[in-house]
Amino acid sequence: MRELTVDLGDRSYPIYIGEGLLHRAAELFAKHGVSLKSPLMIVSDANVADTYLGPLEEQLRSAGYLTVSITVPSGESSKSLSVFESVITKALEAGLDRHSTIVALGGGVVGDLAGYAAAAYMRGIRFIQIPTTILAHDSSVGGKVAVNHPLAKNIIGAFHQPEIVLYDLQTLQTLPGREVRSGLAEVIKHGLIWDAGFVSWIEENMAKLLSLDPESLGYALYKGCSVKAEVVSKDEREQDLRAILNLGHTIGHALEAVAGYGELTHGEAIAIGMVGSARIGVELGAPEEVYEVTRRLFISCGLPVGIPAHYDTDAIMSAMMRDKKFKEGRMVFVVPTAIGRVEIDKNMSADLVRRTVEQLKGETGQA
Amino acid sequence: MRELTVDLGDRSYPIYIGEGLLHRAAELFAKHGVSLKSPLMIVSDANVADTYLGPLEEQLRSAGYLTVSITVPSGESSKSLSVFESVITKALEAGLDRHSTIVALGGGVVGDLAGYAAAAYMRGIRFIQIPTTILAHDSSVGGKVAVNHPLAKNIIGAFHQPEIVLYDLQTLQTLPGREVRSGLAEVIKHGLIWDAGFVSWIEENMAKLLSLDPESLGYALYKGCSVKAEVVSKDEREQDLRAILNLGHTIGHALEAVAGYGELTHGEAIAIGMVGSARIGVELGAPEEVYEVTRRLFISCGLPVGIPAHYDTDAIMSAMMRDKKFKEGRMVFVVPTAIGRVEIDKNMSADLVRRTVEQLKGETGQA
Ligand SMILES: NC(=O)c1ccc[n+]([C@@H]2O[C@H](COP(=O)([O-])OP(=O)(O)OC[C@H]3O[C@@H](n4cnc5c(N)ncnc54)[C@H](O)[C@@H]3O)[C@@H](O)[C@H]2O)c1
Ligand SMILES: NC(=O)c1ccc[n+]([C@@H]2O[C@H](COP(=O)([O-])OP(=O)(O)OC[C@H]3O[C@@H](n4cnc5c(N)ncnc54)[C@H](O)[C@@H]3O)[C@@H](O)[C@H]2O)c1
Ligand SMILES: [Zn+2]
Ligand SMILES: [Zn+2]
Repeated sequence: MRELTVDLGDRSYPIYIGEGLLHRAAELFAKHGVSLKSPLMIVSDANVADTYLGPLEEQLRSAGYLTVSITVPSGESSKSLSVFESVITKALEAGLDRHSTIVALGGGVVGDLAGYAAAAYMRGIRFIQIPTTILAHDSSVGGKVAVNHPLAKNIIGAFHQPEIVLYDLQTLQTLPGREVRSGLAEVIKHGLIWDAGFVSWIEENMAKLLSLDPESLGYALYKGCSVKAEVVSKDEREQDLRAILNLGHTIGHALEAVAGYGELTHGEAIAIGMVGSARIGVELGAPEEVYEVTRRLFISCGLPVGIPAHYDTDAIMSAMMRDKKFKEGRMVFVVPTAIGRVEIDKNMSADLVRRTVEQLKGETGQA
Repeated sequence: MRELTVDLGDRSYPIYIGEGLLHRAAELFAKHGVSLKSPLMIVSDANVADTYLGPLEEQLRSAGYLTVSITVPSGESSKSLSVFESVITKALEAGLDRHSTIVALGGGVVGDLAGYAAAAYMRGIRFIQIPTTILAHDSSVGGKVAVNHPLAKNIIGAFHQPEIVLYDLQTLQTLPGREVRSGLAEVIKHGLIWDAGFVSWIEENMAKLLSLDPESLGYALYKGCSVKAEVVSKDEREQDLRAILNLGHTIGHALEAVAGYGELTHGEAIAIGMVGSARIGVELGAPEEVYEVTRRLFISCGLPVGIPAHYDTDAIMSAMMRDKKFKEGRMVFVVPTAIGRVEIDKNMSADLVRRTVEQLKGETGQA
């Protein structure tokens, strides 16, 4: 088992990563003071609940925990105010009190939803993350929790740190391949913004990662979480540094906004975005290899590196404007300056971004 | 103009109390760094908007602020998730950004609703309170914000401190008499838990307070806010001390829960609750005058001191149980030990509370 600490003063918390941790949940909960007297609630989604909810409930109950569970539909649509309300209703009906804990068993959707419920219920109760996707290594660190509004993603939320994060590598074995690749996009991002050595390691171990080799996966998640934890502990409330975590996300979010339902996963969208950002970096003076390595990484991971030709550039650009607010043709943009290093450019030219989007539409993804 | 500071480290903020402050809003906003570049949103209710929204908008606009307003229906029903959603929708449509401010212009309902919207929007933006009821001297200090769930009051919320509180005594002149008395109940509470001298002052000045004499009202709100501020700054997140603010609220909330719509205001319910608590205090050894003074105060304020005979004791007790969770016939209860002093009894006998409720049903309110 690997362990690391997200260092946030009196809100610090540990992340445990290892095989079979689901079967040690009761022990780890007890170690971190989860109350046996107050009911705890597990939030899960339909896919995850099928395989993992029963065993978790059983193991907690046999240790004496009072558990109640709510299973929400799988997918982004569960990050809504109405599903949030149903989670709160369940909590009330089950009699959760100020000493209760809400447990998120699932990917980023369940983590964000359950986390926001924990932040809001009685103005904040304890929260535990049991992430079951690779992508959730990102969402489970940093305490950002939220639901969506029809007009904007993640607009209704809070900062609410978990008590512990419990990452059971075994649960990842059932992840669909596309979700594996999508999650790896964020792992790669954590390398690209912070750690050139980790980027090389990823390149060398891509095949193992894609085949879900537990040892490699454990190390990659440990490193990914560590980078995020370091950035977040230096800037919990996103005053400044934390913005580097948005590498590839300005273009990526715009692509997600214009894509049809299910056309692009988050990881696919930001992979394309990171390739675009690398292009811009090189344009602005970074060494050519920044672009080459970035592109190669995503191709070897089976992720797209270009924008499908039928996407409309105007639509992409106006989605970006809604998201980011250009001021006089300028915007904030995260730009790579070397492998493992990025800069926040507060004065990025919208024209340059537009040209890059155009170029990405010519990319075929052939290595 | 009176000024006091709620001392909460880097979340400290000032409360301004005076006549005509609404006309100085732009100046005070500017002093506290409210951005001219980002739109700000005023949340108000129908009664308040009628008289005060226009002038506030005009004064902010003429100073160069971009303002947008939303008016919600008057009354507790606006503290719902669906009204909250409509506030968020309005904020999105108006393009509020991370540097925007949400302004609550109204009583405790608008303060709690707008405050929760400010806490949640983009995970927290700036918030200003312009309270227009006496009761809101209580709700505008301390940062508790929330909306209700059909099954429980204030269950969905956050701690979110305002940037400033701006109390214009002139706005109180239009308050219906019943709201005046209801608000004074919380002023009296702040005396009873903390400051015997203030209690005497209230007794002597009750007639002036009831006639909304600005000088007396200004002093009373200043003192009421000061007590609350002191308690809150010692215990922002209600670990312990802050619970003394619940004097009269255990019985009071139960009465509100069983009362028919509009039958009892919050102030009326807690006035009865405080008389009950004083009875219990005396029973447990406090001097007789604790009960006598408490009762006399509320009678002279025109507030009820007994429970209407048709209220069912069993219903009141089970509402209390839902709210507070007796454990083996015991509960947490705030008990006066002298005028200006209370204790938190973590082991109060439910039987004693029940007997007190029965006795309150015999009270007639004749001095
Ligand atoms: N809070 C943050 O800081 C943060 C950061 C990044 C992303 N996010 C959010 O995370 C969400 C995306 O997370 P995600 O990619 O994990 O999505 P997700 O939770 O929807 O999971 C993806 C899919 O995999 C399924 N699944 C999950 N675990 C599984 C398992 N072990 N076996 C089989 N199937 C499984 C799910 O049912 C779902 O269909 C987005 O809403 C995004 O906004 C939040
Ligand atoms: N957050 C906290 O710490 C805290 C503390 C105490 C109470 N509260 C909350 O406060 C709410 C009660 O507050 P309230 O009593 O101010 O209720 P309110 O906001 O509903 O106002 C009472 C009535 O007076 C009207 N009104 C307001 N200002 C007026 C004015 N200047 N002239 C004429 N009419 C006016 C309103 O439209 C309403 O009909 C409750 O929801 C309670 O839960 C919160
Ligand atoms: Zn992301
Ligand atoms: Zn009250």
